[in-house]
Order: sequence, then structure tokens, then C-alpha cells
Amino acid sequence: MELLITYDVNTETAAGRRRLRRVAKVCERFGQRVQLSVFECVIDQVNLALLIDALEQEIDVEQDNLRLYRLQEPRKKYVTVLGKPLEHDQREPLIF
Amino acid sequence: MELLITYDVNTETAAGRRRLRRVAKVCERFGQRVQLSVFECVIDQVNLALLIDALEQEIDVEQDNLRLYRLQEPRKKYVTVLGKPLEHDQREPLIF
Repeated sequence: MELLITYDVNTETAAGRRRLRRVAKVCERFGQRVQLSVFECVIDQVNLALLIDALEQEIDVEQDNLRLYRLQEPRKKYVTVLGKPLEHDQREPLIF
Repeated sequence: MELLITYDVNTETAAGRRRLRRVAKVCERFGQRVQLSVFECVIDQVNLALLIDALEQEIDVEQDNLRLYRLQEPRKKYVTVLGKPLEHDQREPLIF
């Protein structure tokens, strides 16, 4: 399935900034960063459970908010991008 | 249709910070803020065209990135929220 992760982590404290880095690291293991706090993933049910578990261990449920959207497929058909394209989309073939 | 807007506006300059405010203002006219740079909207085709037009007038296409995802419906069935819930969701009935 195609999944979108968006997150707001409270970075007013050093602990918050640390949580932000760790949340991003978890997301990087499962998907492609498309904006500062937005990741797109292609993921199955087993890995979705692992992802959610890993994220829940990193966030402060009182201060941070994460949203996981199961996207319509094929994703490209249902997303419109305005402005600057992604610098490097790991999902696109590298042409040498 | 249910739409998700996510945006990254380059705020290194005063002009960028101004664009950020103006992009948020446009989004507030069409939807509900769910995270700092994430809005959910229920919108028809006519208003979608108006929204995109308004956003294109505010962003710097060389520096900013906006993504509009047409979500699966009903939205609530396809979104998982971890952590702190929304302070105030204008779409929920006010119970006195």
C-alpha cells in the first residue's frame, strides 16, 4: 500500500529536537522524504505495524502529532506538486 | 473530494516567512489545519482550481514545495493519528 506520513514534533526543547531526528530516522528506514516532515512509503501490513510501533517509541504522545494516510493508488495519479520538485527521488531510476 | 495539502516554504528570508503566512491563509480559507504545514479540505473541482490558483500566486516555485493529495474516502477510515490529538477540529460538532 501507499502511505503518507506527516508529523509535527515539538522542538522547543533539546529532547524535542532529539525526537524529531529519531522520528525522521525511523521514516527514512521505511520510505522517501518528500518534504521536511513528510514521507511517502510503499509498505505492507507487517511493515506498517513495525513502522507504527517504532514511531510510537520515539514520540511524546502529549506533545507530538503524527498522521499516517493510506493513499489512493497509483499514488502519482492522486498527487499534485506545485513549486520546486524533489531534489532526489530515490524511487526514480538513476540515468547515467 | 477529500484533499490533503502539505507544504514546505523556505523561511530563511523575510520574504519566505511572508510567503509562509500567506500560504497558510489561503489554506485556512479552504480547509482545516491539522499540523503546522498540513491542511485537510473537503473541496469540489471548482474550488480546487481556485485553491491551486491562489497557492500558485503565493509560492516561489524555485524555493517552495506544495503537495496536494486526493485522499481516499471516507477520510477517517484511511488516516491513523498517533500522539496529541487536534486542539480544536472545526469539523467536529461543538457540544455545550
